[in-house]
Amino acid sequence: MNKTGKYEFIAEPFHCDFSGRMFLGHLGNQMLNAADFHSTDRGFGMKYLMGIQRSWVLSRLAIEMVEMPEQYEHYSVETWVESAMKFFTQRNFCVLGSDGRVYGYGRSVWAMIDTATRQPTDIFAIDNGAINQWIVDDKLCPIERGGRVKMSDKSEFVGEMEIHYNDIDINGHVNSVKYIEHVLDLWDIAWYREHRLKRFEIAYVAESHQGDKIRFFREQTVDNECCVRLAKTELGSEKEVEVCRCRLVFS
Amino acid sequence: MNKTGKYEFIAEPFHCDFSGRMFLGHLGNQMLNAADFHSTDRGFGMKYLMGIQRSWVLSRLAIEMVEMPEQYEHYSVETWVESAMKFFTQRNFCVLGSDGRVYGYGRSVWAMIDTATRQPTDIFAIDNGAINQWIVDDKLCPIERGGRVKMSDKSEFVGEMEIHYNDIDINGHVNSVKYIEHVLDLWDIAWYREHRLKRFEIAYVAESHQGDKIRFFREQTVDNECCVRLAKTELGSEKEVEVCRCRLVFS
Repeated sequence: MNKTGKYEFIAEPFHCDFSGRMFLGHLGNQMLNAADFHSTDRGFGMKYLMGIQRSWVLSRLAIEMVEMPEQYEHYSVETWVESAMKFFTQRNFCVLGSDGRVYGYGRSVWAMIDTATRQPTDIFAIDNGAINQWIVDDKLCPIERGGRVKMSDKSEFVGEMEIHYNDIDINGHVNSVKYIEHVLDLWDIAWYREHRLKRFEIAYVAESHQGDKIRFFREQTVDNECCVRLAKTELGSEKEVEVCRCRLVFS
Repeated sequence: MNKTGKYEFIAEPFHCDFSGRMFLGHLGNQMLNAADFHSTDRGFGMKYLMGIQRSWVLSRLAIEMVEMPEQYEHYSVETWVESAMKFFTQRNFCVLGSDGRVYGYGRSVWAMIDTATRQPTDIFAIDNGAINQWIVDDKLCPIERGGRVKMSDKSEFVGEMEIHYNDIDINGHVNSVKYIEHVLDLWDIAWYREHRLKRFEIAYVAESHQGDKIRFFREQTVDNECCVRLAKTELGSEKEVEVCRCRLVFS
């Protein structure tokens, strides 16, 4: 089996935005699906891990696109493991058009947790460090790693939402991509008509669950660049707990 | 070319809910995608229609499921045109597991509009009534047609939401399936743990756009059955205009 996995998708018309290009959230979902197909085929997918009380947890995701697939287009997502350490693994993505043209890249960082304690566990404990045999350290992923998202205390409160049934995935908490969608919803169509989202990065801090409320705080850091901090409040409490931070670069 | 189209999909893990079964909204999207693949292959798809200032508009959709595809499962959606009249066409769906087992059915009613005037136009005007050669009138779709959703004036206001970027599709208005998702979000996970959604039907009345607010009014009509009316208010106005009505049957 090849170390790099490649998965074909179609930009289905009802997964495209007003401009006929795929929603970034949907592309992010397909990256996560590709990651799971890749790891399932190689013996360390989510379904297998669930049976041994383990789960992958996405810690960071950065997506940088030159162009988004257009409706009806066949595209593929390549994914490979760039490196693995005891508590973190780096997985990269490349999005290709049917003609082989590169549309963009993704970088992600994953931890593995014990689903009972929710604490990080040793990735190498799975099948005697089997993940090491799948590492590809010579394949190019020419986008910046996602770093810490620096924000000042000047960020502005821009909205609040409740978490609902459709936000929650099989892990019982808010799906990683749903945060991306809710953050993108802070801008309106008039903005997206004039600006192309070049890069989106997100760093996850805590999980949120049904019943929590999410507050959004936004700050323009430099021209064409914004950061957004998401904080949850649990039912019956006003205490804010940071859930994730995002950085968006428009062009 | 076969009159009935059959399209293969995978129940991707990140399109599944807390229980590991596909979200109904995602299945609805795949039905619409199947409908568009089917009509595109036969010369009357959305992309072609756009070029001649026409578009399909979904008027009614009913989905009745015995079971939902489980994560990783390969399933397929069959779709065919049951009948066509001057202003409406009926299109049916059958959802099948990879072993051929029937998971459920869908029924839909579509109109064709002139995209400039937004008025209904003659379906038979497209390529000399070409749709007539694709009609399948002897294939079973053993679920009730979607009818008028009857509600009294006793429905209760249960929430309001703003329309955002991710709600809007290529047609420039709220995607038909997004209403379904927002309606399903009126119930929480505790409810879905105890109840299976057996049937969902929706009748569309008016389009809504970014900037509109949607109000939800709910009424329990009989045991295990609820109806929901969605009404929009446009920016700067308090006038309510009905957008759609839904009927949900749980078991």
